[in-house]
Amino acid sequence: MEQKCSAVIIGVGPEQGLGATLATFFAGEGLHVFIAGRCEDKLHKIADKIRQTGGSATPVVADATIELDVAHLFKKVRLDGFWVDIAAYNVDSNIPSPLLETDTETFTKLWQQNCLGAFFFGKEAINAMKERQQGTLFFTGATASLRAKPPFTAFASAKAGLRALAQGMAREFSPQGIHVVHVIIDGVIDGERARNQFPDYVRAKGKDGLLQLDAIAETYRAIHKQHPSAWTHELDLRPFKEPF
Amino acid sequence: MEQKCSAVIIGVGPEQGLGATLATFFAGEGLHVFIAGRCEDKLHKIADKIRQTGGSATPVVADATIELDVAHLFKKVRLDGFWVDIAAYNVDSNIPSPLLETDTETFTKLWQQNCLGAFFFGKEAINAMKERQQGTLFFTGATASLRAKPPFTAFASAKAGLRALAQGMAREFSPQGIHVVHVIIDGVIDGERARNQFPDYVRAKGKDGLLQLDAIAETYRAIHKQHPSAWTHELDLRPFKEPF
Amino acid sequence: MEQKCSAVIIGVGPEQGLGATLATFFAGEGLHVFIAGRCEDKLHKIADKIRQTGGSATPVVADATIELDVAHLFKKVRLDGFWVDIAAYNVDSNIPSPLLETDTETFTKLWQQNCLGAFFFGKEAINAMKERQQGTLFFTGATASLRAKPPFTAFASAKAGLRALAQGMAREFSPQGIHVVHVIIDGVIDGERARNQFPDYVRAKGKDGLLQLDAIAETYRAIHKQHPSAWTHELDLRPFKEPF
Amino acid sequence: MEQKCSAVIIGVGPEQGLGATLATFFAGEGLHVFIAGRCEDKLHKIADKIRQTGGSATPVVADATIELDVAHLFKKVRLDGFWVDIAAYNVDSNIPSPLLETDTETFTKLWQQNCLGAFFFGKEAINAMKERQQGTLFFTGATASLRAKPPFTAFASAKAGLRALAQGMAREFSPQGIHVVHVIIDGVIDGERARNQFPDYVRAKGKDGLLQLDAIAETYRAIHKQHPSAWTHELDLRPFKEPF
Repeated sequence: MEQKCSAVIIGVGPEQGLGATLATFFAGEGLHVFIAGRCEDKLHKIADKIRQTGGSATPVVADATIELDVAHLFKKVRLDGFWVDIAAYNVDSNIPSPLLETDTETFTKLWQQNCLGAFFFGKEAINAMKERQQGTLFFTGATASLRAKPPFTAFASAKAGLRALAQGMAREFSPQGIHVVHVIIDGVIDGERARNQFPDYVRAKGKDGLLQLDAIAETYRAIHKQHPSAWTHELDLRPFKEPF
Repeated sequence: MEQKCSAVIIGVGPEQGLGATLATFFAGEGLHVFIAGRCEDKLHKIADKIRQTGGSATPVVADATIELDVAHLFKKVRLDGFWVDIAAYNVDSNIPSPLLETDTETFTKLWQQNCLGAFFFGKEAINAMKERQQGTLFFTGATASLRAKPPFTAFASAKAGLRALAQGMAREFSPQGIHVVHVIIDGVIDGERARNQFPDYVRAKGKDGLLQLDAIAETYRAIHKQHPSAWTHELDLRPFKEPF
Repeated sequence: MEQKCSAVIIGVGPEQGLGATLATFFAGEGLHVFIAGRCEDKLHKIADKIRQTGGSATPVVADATIELDVAHLFKKVRLDGFWVDIAAYNVDSNIPSPLLETDTETFTKLWQQNCLGAFFFGKEAINAMKERQQGTLFFTGATASLRAKPPFTAFASAKAGLRALAQGMAREFSPQGIHVVHVIIDGVIDGERARNQFPDYVRAKGKDGLLQLDAIAETYRAIHKQHPSAWTHELDLRPFKEPF
Repeated sequence: MEQKCSAVIIGVGPEQGLGATLATFFAGEGLHVFIAGRCEDKLHKIADKIRQTGGSATPVVADATIELDVAHLFKKVRLDGFWVDIAAYNVDSNIPSPLLETDTETFTKLWQQNCLGAFFFGKEAINAMKERQQGTLFFTGATASLRAKPPFTAFASAKAGLRALAQGMAREFSPQGIHVVHVIIDGVIDGERARNQFPDYVRAKGKDGLLQLDAIAETYRAIHKQHPSAWTHELDLRPFKEPF
């Protein structure tokens, strides 16, 4: 049986979110997309939408922080007869919290979602890619990946852990043909989450003051297409208006 | 009852180790030292030695990765009638491991020891210091805090998480008079651990090729004594011969 | 008179070099290219080649370290009736030299070529772009931009100066619609210079061990096309085999 | 003739300045101090004050950006029969300037003062130290060494160049016993310059909101005293109140 190419994306939630957008983009490139997230309804909606525009998609309910879920996701990819061309870890959970009010559960959960899950996902993705010695593995970082600012200390700690993880993976697996990328999203994404959580901020920033979903996905696509002789490991993405 | 000054050090193990050395130094400065670690025997040996040289010390068995142990340690300090002038998180556990061979337990344990425990300890220390608006809180980092190199990716991820945690604490609590310090130990410490784990390396490096315990402690002391108008948050310590 | 779009590239030398390749790529995108460098012969050869493939190009003899030359280059662009869509500062001169053997002339020349010229060029480019509030300004950095390793200390000092310059420009002019990009080339470019200067190294690395010119140019193109809501300021480019 | 120990400090200006304070401190440690700067009057005043408190000092008029002046300074040290134990490059000139208003003279002058002069001084200091394989070489950096923020882009470019220079020197000469230190002063020094240039800012910050001169000098002293097995190459100094 001939194996086909796929993209595996975890952290897929709202239709107007980065996970869904990446899935749509990579489906548009002709890849079958496995979309994983915790909410079956949302996954089905996105898969349907992808199919309506001629793409193909498989929704897989999975919690990135549960090792077995992640293993099951990649097992499904394998059993369905797919190579993994692209794997994107797109889980991003942020909870602002002054340090003394941050409880152990919050600190741990942020680490599990932003870092431990990436460890599970990264290992599985590399295992799926290493035979062919090719594939692109994306991790989505944030401003906090580089700089810990209260009240985001716990989040920054987790994101810094993710950044180091991605960097170590790049050093270990680039020579084996696996392109590991850490994307620092420095700003707020113009998606459903921001619009629900802080509508005033969204309005105040204006359209180009927020990262447009398609604009982010375009860069992921360009980075995936890079020739192995000139790979990017880390880059920032920031609205032109955003102070930094 | 008049409260007295103390230093609280966690991660105290072998006599020829950084925890024990810091304890001895701070005891030499006239502070009562609380020394915490997992091994009661070792703690007693070190406490005895400190007392023999005129200092005073309280050994407290505590595992830094267990929140209750850390809480109990600081509760004891309080009940014994001490302020906390210095708190040092000196837990440092490193396990080299190629990424695909790193299991979840190892990845998690390294994070618990290098980062989560620091979160427990840091919160308790700040709570103990904030009333007086003074105190120095040390975190011991490593080369890997800045740079993830296989086979130390899991360790680097944990240490990067610690670094961000320390940075966020510094930003949040410096203005309240608490001096948060992240010390990057870039090299191998000339202590019992290195001599047991890689004796050949120790011999090859020669005396000044390894960080001398007293030399490290001298700098901790100098940083603790800094005037609040000119505090150091981060510094490296490295043998003069060490390539970097 | 309707103004047309152009790319202005300085540091154009050998046909098998990054400057010439960027010029060819941007000409392929339909931009008129102004190619500037010190050697008239080389510029004419490249301009001819661009014309033969349907592009249009103007060679301008200019030394990037001479302010008047740079001013003259942009004056010519203006007088010829062109907007500047892309400006690329591609001067890169590296001289390995142990510090005590580095003379003042070398230290100064490296700074002039890698940093001062970029200041001249950047100012002119921004002046040319600011009216329309659009344009992409590229600076080519190197491994040494981030890390000073002997015997490249003088080079690293100049490149670090360039990096800060680019970063300051990005902070100042991004909000005015000008996209300032700092590209860190981490490795050796497979071009005429490397083949002449260290042929053995080139052979040893093998094809994908060196950055392919077209591969680099593809990324410059992708970055130029980014939507303003998600701009990259800094990224690295590195052969997959390159240790880092 | 037995050679005696000395500290050589360049960038000595007002009595209430870092250069003068470092000189006073090192004289207090028993070192003869060579104090160099552009203003003879100021140098004599400081030398007199040092002598009155039992120290010994030689004023040398020298412009750090003039190679011959720097060479002459170190020649004098040699001819007077002194080793160099400490050398401190303390020239720090900052001119805020929006990029398009920054002229070539300003850009160049900032580089000469913050970076080129450090190259002259560093080479001479290393030449003076290398025979004995000991000595500490300080470079004074600033917030801008790490981060280019308008309107300080030109200053940041020069300071980034200095930082790389210091880093390259540390890598090259630490193994030869020379301790190279880069101190990042992150904040405003409570000295004559700040009081004259922005008195309102000084008042608003309050005493501990500015770096106290003695506090800075204490840390230089502690770093100089570090044992070679645990040297610091880079550290920050910041008022506890200073946001970062």
